[in-house]
Amino acid sequence: MKLLRVGTAGAERPALLDAGGVLRDLSGLVTDIDGALLADDAALDRIRAAESDGGLPELDPAGLRVGPPLGRIGKIVCIGMNYHDHSGEMGVEPPTEPVVFFKAPDTVVGPNDTVLVPRGSTKMDHEVELAVVIGRTARYLESAQAGLAHVAGYAVAHDVSEREFQMERGGTWDKGKNCETFNPLGPWLVTADEVGAPQTLPLRLWVNGELRQDGTTAEQIFPVGEVVRYVSHFMTLYPGDVINTGTPAGVAVGRPEPKPFLRAGDVVELEIDGLGRQRQELKDA
Amino acid sequence: MKLLRVGTAGAERPALLDAGGVLRDLSGLVTDIDGALLADDAALDRIRAAESDGGLPELDPAGLRVGPPLGRIGKIVCIGMNYHDHSGEMGVEPPTEPVVFFKAPDTVVGPNDTVLVPRGSTKMDHEVELAVVIGRTARYLESAQAGLAHVAGYAVAHDVSEREFQMERGGTWDKGKNCETFNPLGPWLVTADEVGAPQTLPLRLWVNGELRQDGTTAEQIFPVGEVVRYVSHFMTLYPGDVINTGTPAGVAVGRPEPKPFLRAGDVVELEIDGLGRQRQELKDA
Repeated sequence: MKLLRVGTAGAERPALLDAGGVLRDLSGLVTDIDGALLADDAALDRIRAAESDGGLPELDPAGLRVGPPLGRIGKIVCIGMNYHDHSGEMGVEPPTEPVVFFKAPDTVVGPNDTVLVPRGSTKMDHEVELAVVIGRTARYLESAQAGLAHVAGYAVAHDVSEREFQMERGGTWDKGKNCETFNPLGPWLVTADEVGAPQTLPLRLWVNGELRQDGTTAEQIFPVGEVVRYVSHFMTLYPGDVINTGTPAGVAVGRPEPKPFLRAGDVVELEIDGLGRQRQELKDA
Repeated sequence: MKLLRVGTAGAERPALLDAGGVLRDLSGLVTDIDGALLADDAALDRIRAAESDGGLPELDPAGLRVGPPLGRIGKIVCIGMNYHDHSGEMGVEPPTEPVVFFKAPDTVVGPNDTVLVPRGSTKMDHEVELAVVIGRTARYLESAQAGLAHVAGYAVAHDVSEREFQMERGGTWDKGKNCETFNPLGPWLVTADEVGAPQTLPLRLWVNGELRQDGTTAEQIFPVGEVVRYVSHFMTLYPGDVINTGTPAGVAVGRPEPKPFLRAGDVVELEIDGLGRQRQELKDA
């Protein structure tokens, strides 16, 4: 299933993109797409049944904003340096265990919303990522297989970054990862059953029409199930938590000088096969 | 005013500790103590008026759990190495700008709740901190004075830490800061008008009755208003966000070998003058 949320920011309604590509209203069936829904197998089954029965009202997508496909996100855990090709371009050894940092849930915007260039930014960068949405509480999991079993679904995430804030201002990376609008998410939350094995997904990102990142989750150093298992030993993951699982090669900071950092006026597009496509215009904050 | 939340975890009701030390029920007046309330001056005035009128029902504190004094926390921004005496004991130069990391809101528990020792932990540590609660949306503030004007109130926070997870497992500090139950908060959210200037508050922490931290916010390298101003240039702060403003000297990792790290069975008590006292028993996760 492809679940999504449409409408004005902060007042999105739950919706479904059906197998025929028709947008369907779920607001008669569930209040929101959130952790509570994803943890509720019976509710998800009711949505599936309603789709099969053809009983869901159609929504006209014309002029309708697509919001992030998940509400009430608890936390966003991010995995750094998780692609062989990306750690290669950064000139660092692949990490021996996952690198963890955070994005605040308030950085999340819809897949086509404006992204703001922070004041004083000179090194804004792009990162297309596979986002994992947790569906069951995960504590001290024992295997990567158990990790995968706690995943409710997947989405495209844009882990927007400011490299000077991230790496040249002291302290942790978090300073360059949490500016307003720095985590476009969506368009869809695709349930895990529809995605199947998540380690062969192509990811791509363009800036002003030029292909900049062209990778595959096969390059992940720590695959999805292992990431969930590992993180669950340092913190408890709850339904509605998100893990951004890292970016493949092609980011601006990994390129030769002059590095093509992002600026106001740029248009960034990104996609993961089966999970949909995002498009953001950049404007000054 | 001293605002608090009492009752079983996840079902706390809003309450007030009045000037006479009597616990009063606020649930007839407001739904919760959260960012929405703190941003609503009229609602806060109604609470003040009801306290003056003597119209608030009394609550019997006997057997009543005290929860964290703030619900629906958006994010918790933490400032590292923010006390002169603490950076001295750690043997590092005072930072030239604030060090920022995150704790997930799901780490927050009540001031007297059990704190869990993570599996595999050998270097669990304590940090008594002044928590700042944001009351107005803060973006690109221009002065420390403006920073202070965006603060709704203050509370005691325990920034529980696992030093091996934090510093020896690669990546950012976040890995050692986000274990389950790692942020006891409260007992009270004391409104800024009652606290006044926040830079002369004594903070103390005991382990099994032995005084381990005995500091004052006068030692803060970056005072509260400056911290709020600084952070607002890297991320937007919203009502109900929390900033843990750092810890004074006396943590276990800063002491000579054998360093007195925390273990199951230990009892940690901490307090800040005017903001109340916490007591946690440690148990294995």
